[in-house]
Amino acid sequence: MSVPASTPFQVYDTTLRDGAQQEGMNLSVSDKLAIAPLLDELGVGFIEGGWPGAVPKDTEFFKRAAKELDFRNAELAAFGSTRKAGTRAVDDPQVRALVDSEAPVVALVAKHDLRHVERALRTTGDENIAMIADTVAFLVREGRRVVVDAEHFFDGYRFDPAYSRAAVLAGFEAGAEVVALCDTNGGMVPTWVADIVHEIRGAVGPDAVLGIHAHNDSGCAIANTLAAVEAGCTHVQGTVNGYGERTGNADLLSVVANLQLKYGLPVLKVSEGLPGGLTELTRIAHAISEITNISPFARSPYVGASAFAHKAGLHASAIRVDPDLYQHTDPANVGNDMRMLISDMAGRASIELKGRELGFDLAGRPELLGRVTDRVKDAEANGYTYEAADASFELLLLEEIDGQRPQFFRVESWRTIVERSGGRGTPATAEATVKLHAGGERIVSTGEGNGPVNALDHALRQALVTVYPELESFELIDFKVRILDSMHGTDAITRVLIEMTDGQRSWSTVGVGPNLLEASWEALTDSAIWGLRHRGVTPL
Amino acid sequence: MSVPASTPFQVYDTTLRDGAQQEGMNLSVSDKLAIAPLLDELGVGFIEGGWPGAVPKDTEFFKRAAKELDFRNAELAAFGSTRKAGTRAVDDPQVRALVDSEAPVVALVAKHDLRHVERALRTTGDENIAMIADTVAFLVREGRRVVVDAEHFFDGYRFDPAYSRAAVLAGFEAGAEVVALCDTNGGMVPTWVADIVHEIRGAVGPDAVLGIHAHNDSGCAIANTLAAVEAGCTHVQGTVNGYGERTGNADLLSVVANLQLKYGLPVLKVSEGLPGGLTELTRIAHAISEITNISPFARSPYVGASAFAHKAGLHASAIRVDPDLYQHTDPANVGNDMRMLISDMAGRASIELKGRELGFDLAGRPELLGRVTDRVKDAEANGYTYEAADASFELLLLEEIDGQRPQFFRVESWRTIVERSGGRGTPATAEATVKLHAGGERIVSTGEGNGPVNALDHALRQALVTVYPELESFELIDFKVRILDSMHGTDAITRVLIEMTDGQRSWSTVGVGPNLLEASWEALTDSAIWGLRHRGVTPL
Repeated sequence: MSVPASTPFQVYDTTLRDGAQQEGMNLSVSDKLAIAPLLDELGVGFIEGGWPGAVPKDTEFFKRAAKELDFRNAELAAFGSTRKAGTRAVDDPQVRALVDSEAPVVALVAKHDLRHVERALRTTGDENIAMIADTVAFLVREGRRVVVDAEHFFDGYRFDPAYSRAAVLAGFEAGAEVVALCDTNGGMVPTWVADIVHEIRGAVGPDAVLGIHAHNDSGCAIANTLAAVEAGCTHVQGTVNGYGERTGNADLLSVVANLQLKYGLPVLKVSEGLPGGLTELTRIAHAISEITNISPFARSPYVGASAFAHKAGLHASAIRVDPDLYQHTDPANVGNDMRMLISDMAGRASIELKGRELGFDLAGRPELLGRVTDRVKDAEANGYTYEAADASFELLLLEEIDGQRPQFFRVESWRTIVERSGGRGTPATAEATVKLHAGGERIVSTGEGNGPVNALDHALRQALVTVYPELESFELIDFKVRILDSMHGTDAITRVLIEMTDGQRSWSTVGVGPNLLEASWEALTDSAIWGLRHRGVTPL
Repeated sequence: MSVPASTPFQVYDTTLRDGAQQEGMNLSVSDKLAIAPLLDELGVGFIEGGWPGAVPKDTEFFKRAAKELDFRNAELAAFGSTRKAGTRAVDDPQVRALVDSEAPVVALVAKHDLRHVERALRTTGDENIAMIADTVAFLVREGRRVVVDAEHFFDGYRFDPAYSRAAVLAGFEAGAEVVALCDTNGGMVPTWVADIVHEIRGAVGPDAVLGIHAHNDSGCAIANTLAAVEAGCTHVQGTVNGYGERTGNADLLSVVANLQLKYGLPVLKVSEGLPGGLTELTRIAHAISEITNISPFARSPYVGASAFAHKAGLHASAIRVDPDLYQHTDPANVGNDMRMLISDMAGRASIELKGRELGFDLAGRPELLGRVTDRVKDAEANGYTYEAADASFELLLLEEIDGQRPQFFRVESWRTIVERSGGRGTPATAEATVKLHAGGERIVSTGEGNGPVNALDHALRQALVTVYPELESFELIDFKVRILDSMHGTDAITRVLIEMTDGQRSWSTVGVGPNLLEASWEALTDSAIWGLRHRGVTPL
């Protein structure tokens, strides 16, 4: 590897610009203003905010960022393009807008594939190089640090290496601080990247700062970034959670975790005595997911909810004794946790670990541990799964510890009616009636909904909220149905998993029954019980 | 690269075993029996079905697979472990069960990290090597092809190369056909893998078949697999959609697409004249997602819904003119499509092909083909999927050809009531009333069931069977529910897929609605219609 640990390494985040190209993502100015400080806290060196001038929302972001944001680690970067063919950079309003954004850093996208120059830009190779040189020089004269984003560089280099190389050299000669080599179409594999970066490193000399910007179309974005670093790049671009167009950009979180933990390169800036850095990785990944409103991917390296979750029951006791043998890094390094999944291979060891995770010490109570293990095995044989339903597992545990689960209410009966009066296309109606006792009262409540579960959910909440106003803030955010042993058709067992939130945390419960509604009712009531208990509510 | 294109390359799928370790995944025997033929159709060489003997469900899978599955490309593999320390393989019931499974291939997990041998297995390095040699030799004598899964190989090699190398050599010397080098904890990066495989290749000689089994904990599973192939592995293991414990296994779909499209290695087996191979990649990925009931990840390389989706921006017209400039491979290579706008994947060509498959020639009727394509696009945008519901697609086609679907009955109304009178543990009751017109009569029928869908199914059959006695033989054999857009909780759209049989063939229909019962009703009635039509019944 040619990168000494002392190289001032640049971590360049483009979540707010290239990440926002993801299908279904639509970031508002306030979303961007909320994400940027989290990126700064993580310790990236650059935050690319958008394309001022071209995108009105981005123009406003830079205006507000200049006033409202005060970074401790990062520099703000504006993204834009080289000037139009046949003009001067100083006269190009798009280039002007980059200066007007007042961002200290400008990332300039510039074509580095002759085919794109000729067929998309419809100009000559020479004019494109003049456009790079002129625009970079202008921005440098205006006091900006310039990063050239060498668009389609790798594909271009494989087609015509001399042209792509000349374009890179033109950027450096005009004063660019960095040229970031882009795999814009994302189809490279690591050895191709390594070979090409190695050749370019030879052409630009040892002092020029080369960067890498990878997309994940071949599933190699993270590895391509590492390969580029090994071959001499000291500037890496990427996005949080790998957001981006098509298959996304290189996931910057995995890239920095790999560089710090596998390569020993301290690439994140961390301010002494302040939180931030790699140990905040998981928290920041999830906080940004909340803002983008894109569910976190459980299998994400390092930060995913499943990233350090172990299912293998047979190994549970060995994992407990020697966790390092079963994980590639200590999850604490990235602010994540090891989790033991309660699966159908659940042994006492994994139940004990799970209990500890939830704050119950079962180690000193072998008889209790045995009872809980038997209950879990029995429940799982009947179709329950606690792996994705910690709240239900906790209620089971409480039942064994206290002899009963918390009694916030007592159900007398419930009923749902769904009917459709008419042929194909006529909508059906659903209603549910719940009768229960809570706070010394008998409560009868009827709810409507677009389906029977929805109606039951409404009826239950309506009944309970008068006694337990805390329920007002609860919201059902996920509902999953699974038919078990499908060979019996509608006679099969139904399992329902629901996830509820109170705005601060979320929890999951499971219900099982021969009937979707019975299963849903169990999960809904357990969810209400767990939520009330964790809000510190006393049963009335 | 040291792999000539002529090497008989082995693609080894472990979705049904290692993939099933994923958090939240729980495959039934019938799920596995449904997934295996799809893997075979894709053209993998090996399908690892589970651990017979250790997991009762897997024992049953192998029993049923031997009778029910007939692969055209793949060999079935059973997974198991080396014998216990201090015993003989021939006496070990776990090893015996592998032979009893009748799978022609056995994958034998064997420790290759001395620390695991001493600390988890609590035996000596020498005894572990004896366990490998004895178990492999026993299985080979029993006529099995043996793949050794060299567990924790890379971590072990970095700790004590001599020991891990000796274990690999012991496997080959005892007659193993393949030793698959496992990055069990998933923390490797490509250059580490390449260096180690290169060293092992030197130790085992050019003819030994080395394999690679990677996990994605550093985000490099696909790249690590490619690095291993470049360094001389000719056997790759992985799972569909990258399913697996923690961050998952190497995504076998991306691996084979990269090997075929980037490296020019024709690794999938394809039977002349039959569908299958790389162009079926996207369809098979999604069909397997339906069975596992795990939402497909839109950003998956090659097969994701977003993988070739371009946000229609500045480049839209350039992309349309010159798509090759903007995509790393032609999406048709993997059965996917470029998308410019929010739209579905159904193109006219695939609709035409599907029609032909069902016996309708749409090629000569471009206007009809256009109408059907529009209907399908519209329906898919509303949550329908026809990939696993041929019967529903056929009814849609008939509607466009004949102006209406076959009219066996006309529904006036239906209603379901589910109620539970009592607390936890009291069973609920469900009944449904259906009013419909058939054979010139108005029929009112009430059915009971253990749930509302079951009750509706009973009421519908009871109503119709007097007019259409053929319905007597119909049986519902599968019922799947999927909640779409789960961010809205119970307000979301529900999709139901059902499979019906008449004892001779089976067919599948889909229903979608804001309400589970509406969706189920649509699927149930379409299923009855399709079944009656294909029994040659005339509407009365």
